Parts: sequence; structure tokens; C-alpha cells
Amino acid sequence: MDNSAKPTLFTCLSPALLHLYDVSDSIVVIIDVLRATSTIATALYNGAASVIPVATVARCIELGKESNGITAGERDGKVAEGLEYGNSPFEYPPSFIQGRVLVLTTTNGTKLLHMALDNGAKEIITGSFPNLSAVCDHLMSSKMNVILGCAAWKDRVNLEDSLFAGAVIERIGKHFDIKCDSSRMVQNLYKSARGDLYEFMKQNDATHYHRLSNFGLEKDIRYCLAAEGANVLPKFVGDRLVIG
Amino acid sequence: MDNSAKPTLFTCLSPALLHLYDVSDSIVVIIDVLRATSTIATALYNGAASVIPVATVARCIELGKESNGITAGERDGKVAEGLEYGNSPFEYPPSFIQGRVLVLTTTNGTKLLHMALDNGAKEIITGSFPNLSAVCDHLMSSKMNVILGCAAWKDRVNLEDSLFAGAVIERIGKHFDIKCDSSRMVQNLYKSARGDLYEFMKQNDATHYHRLSNFGLEKDIRYCLAAEGANVLPKFVGDRLVIG
Repeated sequence: MDNSAKPTLFTCLSPALLHLYDVSDSIVVIIDVLRATSTIATALYNGAASVIPVATVARCIELGKESNGITAGERDGKVAEGLEYGNSPFEYPPSFIQGRVLVLTTTNGTKLLHMALDNGAKEIITGSFPNLSAVCDHLMSSKMNVILGCAAWKDRVNLEDSLFAGAVIERIGKHFDIKCDSSRMVQNLYKSARGDLYEFMKQNDATHYHRLSNFGLEKDIRYCLAAEGANVLPKFVGDRLVIG
Repeated sequence: MDNSAKPTLFTCLSPALLHLYDVSDSIVVIIDVLRATSTIATALYNGAASVIPVATVARCIELGKESNGITAGERDGKVAEGLEYGNSPFEYPPSFIQGRVLVLTTTNGTKLLHMALDNGAKEIITGSFPNLSAVCDHLMSSKMNVILGCAAWKDRVNLEDSLFAGAVIERIGKHFDIKCDSSRMVQNLYKSARGDLYEFMKQNDATHYHRLSNFGLEKDIRYCLAAEGANVLPKFVGDRLVIG
């Protein structure tokens, strides 16, 4: 196939760069590997009715009441004051989450999702290693332009979201017209790292690896870097993520 | 040496991310490999008295008159209207540039340099493969915090500036305290690419490689990706770059 006939694919390494891309014509994949989008996929995979991502703790409490939902979110590595649960995917097994609404407040992922929404993204889905295949299959079958949106950390580019973008490109990139150096950069990064993503994060002093491992969350990190643990497609519909 | 006693090093992948870093406490290395900072190093190495980087063609003409300088700059791959020369390092051999002032208008590199200046950067130098060693030696001996500032392309992250940042980190990174995922990303990129940077750019469809090779500038690209061709340290003093 001629490249020009393929849909385009761009990687946006930080929310501070989102304005450079035309989201109105694209599926935007929100990527916040540690841990928001991994937890979202897991909760939905385990039977949550929906996940409502919100920016603030106050809004989380408010919506939790309105929707009779579970309120969850952390600040500085601890369950935020006034909320019931944290950001770990392991807090949401089927026995607990089945049929329930999870109202989740995160900083980076939620910010990017709302930016994409405000800019008129054609479609918004979330991506993480646990649902890598579901994301790739959807992007392949949609035949639409794609923007891989890394949530990053307070706008600073991070390794884990970049690695996930690289994994997507490595798997399905040849079906897209990629004129985007960021995409090539993350693809190369993933190729260097794929032998052992966890070890790569550790060896490369990933800032978020340190942040979480200081809280004793190695188990979370390992889960969030492993493919296929929760292979569903979270799609943003209205004000919430549901299985798409 | 304890890491906390070392100066810090950050990589800023795009001017749109510069606000995330504290330039007031740092040496900022302006990196615009294709071709502004390579040409700046080359002109100074070949004996230019100074290089004045300016943002617009109008300002270039004005300063050219004031300083009796050579006016140079391209727009869309051609010498800009009203200017005398282009952006190629090969236009500035010693026989031509010796003792003269070069007034150079570029878009990405100049923009970043002026941003760093406006934000109160402690020191500004320019980096490119032709002066890689001079940059590394200076950063090592200064023992100051460092920000590797990639000029990028209209704020979009690019491979060539990232590769240069990676080359610096690969060479002298262990002498700095690096808590910066962007730095690890570019270092990994450089490690994948260093066998043949030119071939890497070509294989990875680097956007700027295509832009320049369409203008028949493969020779420029090869020169700009090769180390040590013009090993001087351009330092910004007052309104211009001189050998530091």
C-alpha cells in the first residue's frame, strides 16, 4: 500500500506538546502506564461498570456520591484524604469491582484526557501494557489517524509511557504513515528495552520507578509493564470510560 | 562521588518544554544539529569574529548593515530574500569567513536561544556533532548544572538534536546527577544509532533528513552528523556567539 493512503500516526510525548497535533481528526490513546491507565483497564476487565476519571479529589468525592461509586486516587503515594481506595490495579479484583462505578482521580492521565476532549478528539481510548493487544487491534481495524498521547509526569517526558507508545508502533506501525520523529524515538526505545522492561526501567533510573519503588510498589510496576493482563478496550463515552 | 554532590543534567526535548527546567541555575546547550549550530561552530572554527543569531530576515538585514556583517539564512530550503548566503556549513570556509561577522537567521535554534536568554540562563553555549568534544570538555570542567536544549522543529521533537544530547550524555553523563527520563531516552537512542548516525536517520525516516535530502543536501547532513569537524566552543556573550 502507498504510504499516503495509510492513516497517520503521531506520538505526543507530553501534554505540553498536544497542541502540535490535530486531535479532531484522530483517535487519541491516553497512556499513563504507572498506574492510571493500567488500573482503568484492569478495573473494566474485572467487571467495573465504568470508570470516571476526574481531576480533583473534591470532584471525585462529589461524583462518588452522585453515582454511588467507589472513590479512588492517590496524592504523593497515599490514598488521598476523603477517598476510599488507591491507584493500584490490585485493589480492584472482580469480587470487589464487579458492576460498580469507579471514580478515579489522577493528575497526569486525567489532565491529558480532558485536554484531548476539549480539543475535540474524534475518539478517546486508554492504553497500557495490560491491554496492549486490545488497543492495537482497535487501531488497526478503525483505519483512522492515531495520536499516541503520553500522559508524562507533570509535563515531563517519561520512560514508561514512551515505552508503551513504542510497543504499539513496533507492533502495528507499518500499517500507518509515520512522519514523526517522536514515534521513531519511542520505537527504538522499546526495541532496546523489550527484553525486560522492568529491568530497563530500573537500570535507566526511571524517575517514576524510583518514586513507586520507594513506596514498595514493585509488584504494581511489574504488573503494569506486562502485556495482556487485562485485555479490554476502555473507550471514553460521555463522561466515563466503558469497554468499547 | 555521591550523586547528590554532582551537578544535575536535564534534557529538554523541545522549546515547548523549556519552562519545566530552571535555566537560571544552569548552562544551557542550544542544539540545532541540522544545521544552525553545526554552521555556527564551523564559522567560528574557520575564523569568524562572531555569529549573531537573529529571529527574522528583517532583523538580519538590519544587523548586517550595522555590523558590516554577512547576512545569511534560509526559508523553505532557499536563501531568504534579501540575504546573501544560506545555512550550509560549507558556505563558510576560512578564506571567506576569517575575521568577519556572520548574522544568521534561523527559526528553531534562535527561538530556543532567546527563550533561554529571556529566562535568565546562567550561560548559553551551542552544541553540534562537529564541536561535541569542546562542549563535553566545557561541561565537565564547569561543574555547573546542565540543560541540554533541543531546538526541535517547530516544537516537534526531532531525532538529530536528541541524538546529539544522547552523545553528550553517553560521553560525560556519569559525572552528573541525572534524574531525567528524557536524558535516558536520548542516551538509549544514541546507543542504538551510533554505529552509523547517517544510516540511522535514513532508516528511521527522520523528518528533517527527508526535508534536507529533498534539497540535495546529503553532504551537509553527513558533515553535521560527524564529530569533531569544528571543535570550538561557541558561547553567547552580549548579543552574539564567540569562541568561549
